[in-house]
Amino acid sequence: MTKMKLTILGSGSALPTEHRFNSSHILSIGEKSFMIDCGEGAQIKLRQYKIRTAKLHHIFISHLHGDHCFGLIGLISTLAMLNRKENLYIFAHADLEKILQPQIDYFCQNIPFQVIFNPINPRKQAVIFEDKSIKVSTIPLKHGIQCCGFLFEEKEKEKHLIKDKIEFYNIPVSKLHLIKKGADFVSANGEVITNNQLTIEPEAPKKFAYCSDTLPLEKIIPYIKGVDALFHEATFSEKEKSRAKETFHSTTRQAATIALKAEVKKLIIGHYSARYGSTDKLVEETKAVFKNTFAAEDGGEFEF
Amino acid sequence: MTKMKLTILGSGSALPTEHRFNSSHILSIGEKSFMIDCGEGAQIKLRQYKIRTAKLHHIFISHLHGDHCFGLIGLISTLAMLNRKENLYIFAHADLEKILQPQIDYFCQNIPFQVIFNPINPRKQAVIFEDKSIKVSTIPLKHGIQCCGFLFEEKEKEKHLIKDKIEFYNIPVSKLHLIKKGADFVSANGEVITNNQLTIEPEAPKKFAYCSDTLPLEKIIPYIKGVDALFHEATFSEKEKSRAKETFHSTTRQAATIALKAEVKKLIIGHYSARYGSTDKLVEETKAVFKNTFAAEDGGEFEF
Repeated sequence: MTKMKLTILGSGSALPTEHRFNSSHILSIGEKSFMIDCGEGAQIKLRQYKIRTAKLHHIFISHLHGDHCFGLIGLISTLAMLNRKENLYIFAHADLEKILQPQIDYFCQNIPFQVIFNPINPRKQAVIFEDKSIKVSTIPLKHGIQCCGFLFEEKEKEKHLIKDKIEFYNIPVSKLHLIKKGADFVSANGEVITNNQLTIEPEAPKKFAYCSDTLPLEKIIPYIKGVDALFHEATFSEKEKSRAKETFHSTTRQAATIALKAEVKKLIIGHYSARYGSTDKLVEETKAVFKNTFAAEDGGEFEF
Repeated sequence: MTKMKLTILGSGSALPTEHRFNSSHILSIGEKSFMIDCGEGAQIKLRQYKIRTAKLHHIFISHLHGDHCFGLIGLISTLAMLNRKENLYIFAHADLEKILQPQIDYFCQNIPFQVIFNPINPRKQAVIFEDKSIKVSTIPLKHGIQCCGFLFEEKEKEKHLIKDKIEFYNIPVSKLHLIKKGADFVSANGEVITNNQLTIEPEAPKKFAYCSDTLPLEKIIPYIKGVDALFHEATFSEKEKSRAKETFHSTTRQAATIALKAEVKKLIIGHYSARYGSTDKLVEETKAVFKNTFAAEDGGEFEF
C-alpha cells in the first residue's frame, strides 16, 4: 500500500520565529517527493531533517507572498552547487518566473539543470500535474492575493489478482492486464469466470489536500471531500477572529468546521501567527469541533 | 570606553549545514549595529539571538554570491511587516539594486521605510560611510567575482579634560572645546598652561576588519595593520590548499599568516566549508601560526 507522508519544514506564517520557519512542506508519496511552498530556509530544514532532494522534482507554490517562496533561490542555488542534473519543475503563478528567473541567471551561472516554470491559474480548479500514479489539482482559495491549495490524489489502482485462481483457471498472461482492470474471463469452452472470482479490490486511492492561506471557504468542500488528510491553515485562535478576517486567514474553529463538513479523515493545522508559542490552545479549540486534529510543528511528520 | 562586539549569525560558506547558516554578522559599536553580509535565514538568527533591529540602519555586502545576500529580501520584508519607519542603507555592488529592487517592489508593497542602495566599487579602497564617530572603508579582496572586505574604525577621540585642573586654572567653558582637541591655555596674565597639564590622552580608536571571501592577499596588510580584531575567512584546512586556490578561498594557515604579518590583536576565523563539522582541527592549524585565534560559530560573540 502506498504511503503518503507530510513533513513540515516550516509551521510559521508571515514572520518566522525562533522555533517556526516560514511555510514549507514535503509530501512523500511512495518514492516520490513533492515540495509544497518554500519559505526562507527550506533548504536548511531539508538538510536538518535529512530529506534527500534526489527524488524531488516538483515544487508547488500556493501564492506569491514571501513567506511561501523566499526559499526557492537558496534551494536552487544549492542544488546547482551540488551538481544536480535533473530538471526542477515549479508550479506557481506566472509572476514567479519574472521575479525568480533573473535571480537564477545572476546567481546560478552554469546551473547544470533546468528550472521549468509551469504557470498556474490559482482562480481555476484544474489538474496541473499528472504522472502514471499521481494527479495534482489546484483548489482556488480566498486570500489577499491570488492563491490556491493543492489536491494530491493517487490514481485509481488496478485490482489485485488472486494468484491461485489465475493458476486454477489456467488464464494466459496476455489476459491478465484486462482482468486487473475488471474484465471477466471466458475460457476456451465458453465458461465465464466473473472478475470478482479472480481479483481483490484495490485499496482506495490516497488523497491529501493542502489549503493555505485562506479565509474559510465552503466552496472548497466538494474538492476535498473525504480526503485522508487535510492541511488547513489556522493562523489565529478564535479570539483573533476579526484579525483573521482582516488578513484573509482562518481561525482554529473555522479550519475545523471545513474539515468536519468535508468529512476528512484527519486534519493538520499549521501556519500559526508568530504570537503563539505553544499550539496547545489552538489544538484544543480545533478539536472541540473536529476531533481528529493534529498540530504541525517544524520537523513534524504525518503518515496517512 | 566604546566596546565593539561581533555576533556571528552564520559561520558557514556556500552550502548551509544543520549547524551553520550562510555568512552574516552583526557588529555592534556602542549603541549602533551594523550588519555585514546577509545570508539566507539571517532574520531568523537575529530573532533567535534576540538582536533588536531598531538600531540597525546599515548593511554592508561584501560580494554578490548568494550565500552572502539571499537573506536580504526576507529581512526587509519582515521589517516592513513590523512597520519599521527608519531608512535602511545597503552598501553593495551596484548590481544588487537591479536584483533586489524588483523583489522589494513585488513583495513589499506599501513598505513604510526606504531601502537606499549605496553602490560601492569593491576594487577600490575608499571610505564608503562615516558618521560622527565611525568610519567604514572597503578593502579590495581577490575572489571569483568582485569582492571587498570592510574596515570599521572609530574616529580619533577627543582628549579627556582633567576636571580639577580646569577648575584650578578657572578656564572658561568656551575654551574647553579647543583644549579637548589639544590646545594650550593662555590665562589673562599671559601664563601658558600646556595641554598635557589639562588633559589625559583618549583611548586608541577601535578597529575591526572583515575579510571574506578571498584568496590570501598580502596587499591588504597595510589596511588592516594592528586592528583590534580581524575576521578572516578560513574556508579550508591546509589539506585542501589546492581546492582553496581553485575556489578563491583561504586556508587556516593562510588566514593566520595574514593576521601575523598585519600584527592584528585577535583573529576570528569563519566561513568554513560544509565538509567540516567541528572546527577543532581548523583552529589548531591556525593557532600554530597565530596564537590569538578564535573560531566563529553561529551565535558566537566576540568583544574587543
